[in-house]
Amino acid sequence: MLDTLLHNATLITMNSDGDIVENAMVGIQNCRIVSVDKRFAETPLPDARETIDVRGGIIMPGLINTHTHLPMSLFRGLADDLPLMTWLNAHIFPAEAQFITPETVYLGALLSCAELLLSGTTTCCDGYFYERHVAEAVHHAGMRAILGQGVIDYPAPGVPDPSRNISEAAAFMEAWQEKTPLIQPSVFCHSPYTCSAQTLSAAKALTRSTGALFQIHVAETRPEYDQMRSLHSMTPVAYLNSLELLDSRTLLIHAIWLDDADIAIIARTGAAISHAPESAMKLASGVAKIEAIIQAGVAAGLGTDGCASNNNQDMFQEMDMAAKLGKVFSLNPQAMSAQTVLKMATIGAAKATGLDCWIGSIEPGKLADIVILDTHAPHLTPMYHPVSQIVYAANGSDVRDVMIHGNWVVKNRNLISLDLTDILDRIKVKSQKIQISDGLVKSSRTRRENPEE
Amino acid sequence: MLDTLLHNATLITMNSDGDIVENAMVGIQNCRIVSVDKRFAETPLPDARETIDVRGGIIMPGLINTHTHLPMSLFRGLADDLPLMTWLNAHIFPAEAQFITPETVYLGALLSCAELLLSGTTTCCDGYFYERHVAEAVHHAGMRAILGQGVIDYPAPGVPDPSRNISEAAAFMEAWQEKTPLIQPSVFCHSPYTCSAQTLSAAKALTRSTGALFQIHVAETRPEYDQMRSLHSMTPVAYLNSLELLDSRTLLIHAIWLDDADIAIIARTGAAISHAPESAMKLASGVAKIEAIIQAGVAAGLGTDGCASNNNQDMFQEMDMAAKLGKVFSLNPQAMSAQTVLKMATIGAAKATGLDCWIGSIEPGKLADIVILDTHAPHLTPMYHPVSQIVYAANGSDVRDVMIHGNWVVKNRNLISLDLTDILDRIKVKSQKIQISDGLVKSSRTRRENPEE
Repeated sequence: MLDTLLHNATLITMNSDGDIVENAMVGIQNCRIVSVDKRFAETPLPDARETIDVRGGIIMPGLINTHTHLPMSLFRGLADDLPLMTWLNAHIFPAEAQFITPETVYLGALLSCAELLLSGTTTCCDGYFYERHVAEAVHHAGMRAILGQGVIDYPAPGVPDPSRNISEAAAFMEAWQEKTPLIQPSVFCHSPYTCSAQTLSAAKALTRSTGALFQIHVAETRPEYDQMRSLHSMTPVAYLNSLELLDSRTLLIHAIWLDDADIAIIARTGAAISHAPESAMKLASGVAKIEAIIQAGVAAGLGTDGCASNNNQDMFQEMDMAAKLGKVFSLNPQAMSAQTVLKMATIGAAKATGLDCWIGSIEPGKLADIVILDTHAPHLTPMYHPVSQIVYAANGSDVRDVMIHGNWVVKNRNLISLDLTDILDRIKVKSQKIQISDGLVKSSRTRRENPEE
Repeated sequence: MLDTLLHNATLITMNSDGDIVENAMVGIQNCRIVSVDKRFAETPLPDARETIDVRGGIIMPGLINTHTHLPMSLFRGLADDLPLMTWLNAHIFPAEAQFITPETVYLGALLSCAELLLSGTTTCCDGYFYERHVAEAVHHAGMRAILGQGVIDYPAPGVPDPSRNISEAAAFMEAWQEKTPLIQPSVFCHSPYTCSAQTLSAAKALTRSTGALFQIHVAETRPEYDQMRSLHSMTPVAYLNSLELLDSRTLLIHAIWLDDADIAIIARTGAAISHAPESAMKLASGVAKIEAIIQAGVAAGLGTDGCASNNNQDMFQEMDMAAKLGKVFSLNPQAMSAQTVLKMATIGAAKATGLDCWIGSIEPGKLADIVILDTHAPHLTPMYHPVSQIVYAANGSDVRDVMIHGNWVVKNRNLISLDLTDILDRIKVKSQKIQISDGLVKSSRTRRENPEE
């Protein structure tokens, strides 16, 4: 007998044939998908402990967000529309220095998990400091994740002495190695310009010892590109390659400022890309050549980046943005099709992070990470092409139910695995202190924001 | 006594000072806002027939969508990711020729009204054929709108003989002139390349006779720009100006391919702009120089365009896209601030369409077009800057209640003015015929979409 049967749905499998099954039935047993069938008129429903009528909605794979900094939800919207250095030095860095503690990291990560689950993301690929507290939050939320302890050659939250950054990462990896089937520990080096060659090599060696994912921001801004060329006479990507850091267990995040040789290097080494267009747009970092990257055969996933630079973590909106930006940037309406970006949020993201044996598509044998969309809404009607609708018309609020590893975490838009009201209340208390510190609360009772441009 | 009192809210006034009032109270009597106050601790609530506790949410002006083709919701997602001419000639034009009737125009407009109302848009500026049937739908929905009968020098739905395009427009204007306080008739000329100089001049003369808004797509694509220069030795905007079509009652839609002289012409004549970035991105038309246009003093509003090229009509997502595209296009994170784009969706859009005496801000004396956002959600928490949150984090599904002209049209996310389920059911029946005609329904039971890029 099945544990759960889903029926009366349009199923987007995201299998290698891109199959879409109308009037589909999906059977789940323990943590796995065990059957995917089309139901014909008179077929009786198989027995199951729980039978869910999807009422003509969409079943799709849980979304995979390949770039998050979960605790940064604490700073969502704290400072926007500012030059990058003002944003970082006058707002984000001071706020991090003052407010990032084990408690706030845990709380901020819970808030992000709540947002991710309610908008259909079942897996994220994260990096921050105090990552063991992020891991506790993700574990409580029942989410799947690759979690990277941050490594940087500056004093950082929880790692005041940078010479201990690798040993802290090793301790995190050790603590979460095979602790739960849902969490894979990883190392997140901040960037080639904030980590020495020695640090980068040591971090990569650490991940090699367990086959863990090595994550790094690279080639995000033009100044970084210029600086690396001036320091090393190499592009940022060529520099990482010269240190032998690129292989199929390396995730290059942003990768905006690339030349053709960089793309060839990435393709040859098998390194993967996390494409985070909304953050790059909001911070005005630039537009990644993502079509060329994909055409070169590179595995690429989508990511939202942290909430301080997006400012939500809605992967539906990220898909829409990725598709539209790709088209207008190339002046080609065929660029970055709906199918391409949905792949980048599901099976493509799974490939980029090495999880494609387990998740990323709805097929028998895969783990049961499943999203159900309610399509009874004007903005999702009519329904000619479900994939188009998901990318160009849906948003995270259309998610009705979410299952991870065979367990429901969202049911009828209610978060099951976490106490949402408690999280929101605690965040509000904490954010008042952050706001006062950021100098935002004015003494006047009516405040003005940028009165007139 | 007030008809309605809203309290316990953060009020985004969008008045000329950009005031934001915490713990605000808004009083409504008949169709108008009559009071806007801050409530101090012990202030008793004024008497009202209906008192609404906004529970810490946001009150903001109803959004104004300056560019729609309401009936095109029938074709939402029918054909995406295609070259412009294939999209138009192989899908949209044949579907319009076969399926656009008074009945489908009415039904499609109802669907769009449902979507617009549920996502916080209270006013739209529309253009299509059979516009009198659009007007009936908008009237039934209780929406505010400027509605333009389409004019084009080709046979069109309802106007098989193009020589009657102006007289049809005149008849529409006559029929809806002062019929209801919510609807203003207008004329919508398709473009400078599909209407002759004579047609354009006659259409403008028609609007001049009543002070109505003259709407026109212009400078949308590079081929149009090149064609107009080759035909008239003038840019599209300069050509319209040579015909004396530009004044403060002209709304130029898209206006992407402009040179500096065009921007100066628009500013000097007082013509306004409708900026529709999502459609322009999806169709890969180009990126408008909207910052320069605004800096030149031109009134500019945001628009979604029709659903066949967006594919939703969510103005929150349009704001987010406009802000982020503006930043990355100029590589300047200060470009297109949250405040700037929220203006373009409220008071700026009202100015662009000549409605700013009545709507676009929450101030005593203005008509009561009001949106309430539920902010009890992880993606809207914390709340440092409400304007940032609205633009960068919210989406249309966060709209809880909507009032137009003093009447509730959405309450607790339920559409009051229309029967949503009935509309969705009727659209599904109609869309099956459209789909069969478009050749989409495959004989196989499992269909594949773009199997592998």
